[in-house]
Amino acid sequence: MKDFEFYNPVRIFFGKEQISKIASQIPAGNNVLIIYGEGSIFKNGVYDKVKEALKGYNVTEFGGVEPNPYYETAMKAVKILKEKKIDFLLAVGGGSVIDATKFIAAAALYENGDPWKILAENDPVKSSLPFGTVLTLPATGTEMNKNSVISRKSTTEKLAFVSPYCFPRFSVLLPEAAGSLPCNQVANGVVDAFVHVIEQYLTYPVNAPIQDRFAEAILITLIEEGPKVYAEPADYDAMANLMWSATMALNGLIQCGVPGDWSVHSIGHELTALHGIDHARTLAIVLPGLWKVLREEKKQKLLQYGQRVWNITTGTEEERIDAAINKTTEFFESLGIKTRLKDYGVKQDTIDKIVTRFEERKWLALGDRGLTTPAVARKALEYQL
Amino acid sequence: MKDFEFYNPVRIFFGKEQISKIASQIPAGNNVLIIYGEGSIFKNGVYDKVKEALKGYNVTEFGGVEPNPYYETAMKAVKILKEKKIDFLLAVGGGSVIDATKFIAAAALYENGDPWKILAENDPVKSSLPFGTVLTLPATGTEMNKNSVISRKSTTEKLAFVSPYCFPRFSVLLPEAAGSLPCNQVANGVVDAFVHVIEQYLTYPVNAPIQDRFAEAILITLIEEGPKVYAEPADYDAMANLMWSATMALNGLIQCGVPGDWSVHSIGHELTALHGIDHARTLAIVLPGLWKVLREEKKQKLLQYGQRVWNITTGTEEERIDAAINKTTEFFESLGIKTRLKDYGVKQDTIDKIVTRFEERKWLALGDRGLTTPAVARKALEYQL
Repeated sequence: MKDFEFYNPVRIFFGKEQISKIASQIPAGNNVLIIYGEGSIFKNGVYDKVKEALKGYNVTEFGGVEPNPYYETAMKAVKILKEKKIDFLLAVGGGSVIDATKFIAAAALYENGDPWKILAENDPVKSSLPFGTVLTLPATGTEMNKNSVISRKSTTEKLAFVSPYCFPRFSVLLPEAAGSLPCNQVANGVVDAFVHVIEQYLTYPVNAPIQDRFAEAILITLIEEGPKVYAEPADYDAMANLMWSATMALNGLIQCGVPGDWSVHSIGHELTALHGIDHARTLAIVLPGLWKVLREEKKQKLLQYGQRVWNITTGTEEERIDAAINKTTEFFESLGIKTRLKDYGVKQDTIDKIVTRFEERKWLALGDRGLTTPAVARKALEYQL
Repeated sequence: MKDFEFYNPVRIFFGKEQISKIASQIPAGNNVLIIYGEGSIFKNGVYDKVKEALKGYNVTEFGGVEPNPYYETAMKAVKILKEKKIDFLLAVGGGSVIDATKFIAAAALYENGDPWKILAENDPVKSSLPFGTVLTLPATGTEMNKNSVISRKSTTEKLAFVSPYCFPRFSVLLPEAAGSLPCNQVANGVVDAFVHVIEQYLTYPVNAPIQDRFAEAILITLIEEGPKVYAEPADYDAMANLMWSATMALNGLIQCGVPGDWSVHSIGHELTALHGIDHARTLAIVLPGLWKVLREEKKQKLLQYGQRVWNITTGTEEERIDAAINKTTEFFESLGIKTRLKDYGVKQDTIDKIVTRFEERKWLALGDRGLTTPAVARKALEYQL
């Protein structure tokens, strides 16, 4: 196991009757800005419950945050903060709303010019407005971490930032509200969480059995519960298990003391930025391609994954690795998530563009042991044409 | 899964070169009290490194905290706090030192008379001095939770308290320092962590697959790594895995959304209070006895445990439960931990005394579903005579 630091102060409220607790977490008399997305919270009843819980606070609302939230949208909210003297932000919705809220919270107190620099130049966040979240969609894990991903419409860029100031003060996790999600969003959530785990697990062995088994626990649970939730999002128990899996997939715990990869995400972000493909679907495209290229380098973990997660115990090593990759692809496809670029109308020219962007940004050796060079990214995407 | 709340703000520093980081976590100019045990920190080099890291602080020392730390000892430290105007406590050692430090931190600011009331009357802690820990012994998990167990010499009582004010601000986990531990202490740590997991896992199914698999992950890792560390405490990798297992066993995570039992601990504490038997050894005595009594009530989880943790897949249900109990007992015994009362010279009169204490305290239905009545406790102990 490698040396590590772990810190995660997010307070979680999970289950059925939890929204009323937010009032205990926001200082009395605060001016609160509720931030939400494209309106699902009006259909699933969460909006009314949040408003009820915030009686006595001075509440302003900001809706319309889109999937893969835009910098441009977030900056409109930042303007409102100053006008309304907002003290506390409350994100209500899925990962995009929460990611936007993190950026808004950081941009509100940013003193170094255009807050885009937080993303484009990795300029460190030095403070933020406090915020909480009410989660209605299991997927990204942002409800219990300090990460955020923001897109810029004008430049078709999608970039991430991480800041210890961007942990939610609390997150209310509502499996019941997620019960009204369409199946395709549920499928996205399952695949997103699955690949989050893979990015922290499928590298090379460092003798960290707790972290490996926790990662495998999440993967197996997603494989078992994912199809149930995809078939019936209102299955509360299965949705609760999916939601907790997705949170555990990216709260820092399984990353403790082990190497990470994250190059599937880096490549996938470009597909979203250039073609607007759902985040999870880009991961489902890139992951099998990357494994096909790096199957030798990732051999030991691919074999362990095949055996412990998919019960693949027979055949040569090469056959077992093939089986592990195929099982993964079939799992994604079984949830209606296509894994080839042609399924999304993406062609060779996009691959060229992505590789050029990597070179321009000097992303010359991403991921696990720096294995993901621009040439590897090209080959991974070409496998998936 | 049941509804739950989870919050754990302890900052963890894990690994080889971590002690120097404590200076970044204690406000400059603070008066710091280092609290330690019976002197092992002088032998394993930790004392010197801590002193080096605290250069520039005004440091006072308080040593001599015993295993199963006494209220009487802790109150001596409380007196020093006031004399020396201590701002910050630093526990350096194992679980006993940390538990004592939690009580000292709470007692320092207690305003309702004798701080013993925190334990004897469950009088809530309303504030505490801030404290950090440097852990040199994997076992109790107290380095990453808000629990503490304190004994009172004068009344031979051993009682626990829990307070959100008693989370360490940070904990530095040092597998290397634990490498100089004697084997019997390593064995205690393995068994302590094992039973912590069992208390949160072996109840009844509530459809919480992540929590179940995380618990099983810790158990399997303890079964694999425990004997390695017992044979060779200086095996850094195995000790690191044991240490992280013990921390994960009791930081609240695997308790999320599932029932707990904890009656093994309640009975075990009495054996320590009355006979001074090491905490972990009392758990190893009580657990098999309790399972023998409650095998029908805990049947489903005993079968799951047998299958997933010990790979017991053949035989009738009754045979598989027997095998699971036997495997567990053999595991404890393989680490030199005896599991019968006669091994410790304890006889029927002690059982009578424990049952009387339970009745006097109105502990009439402890544990998982209130199954552990005084009569069940009696029967469990009689099985282990």
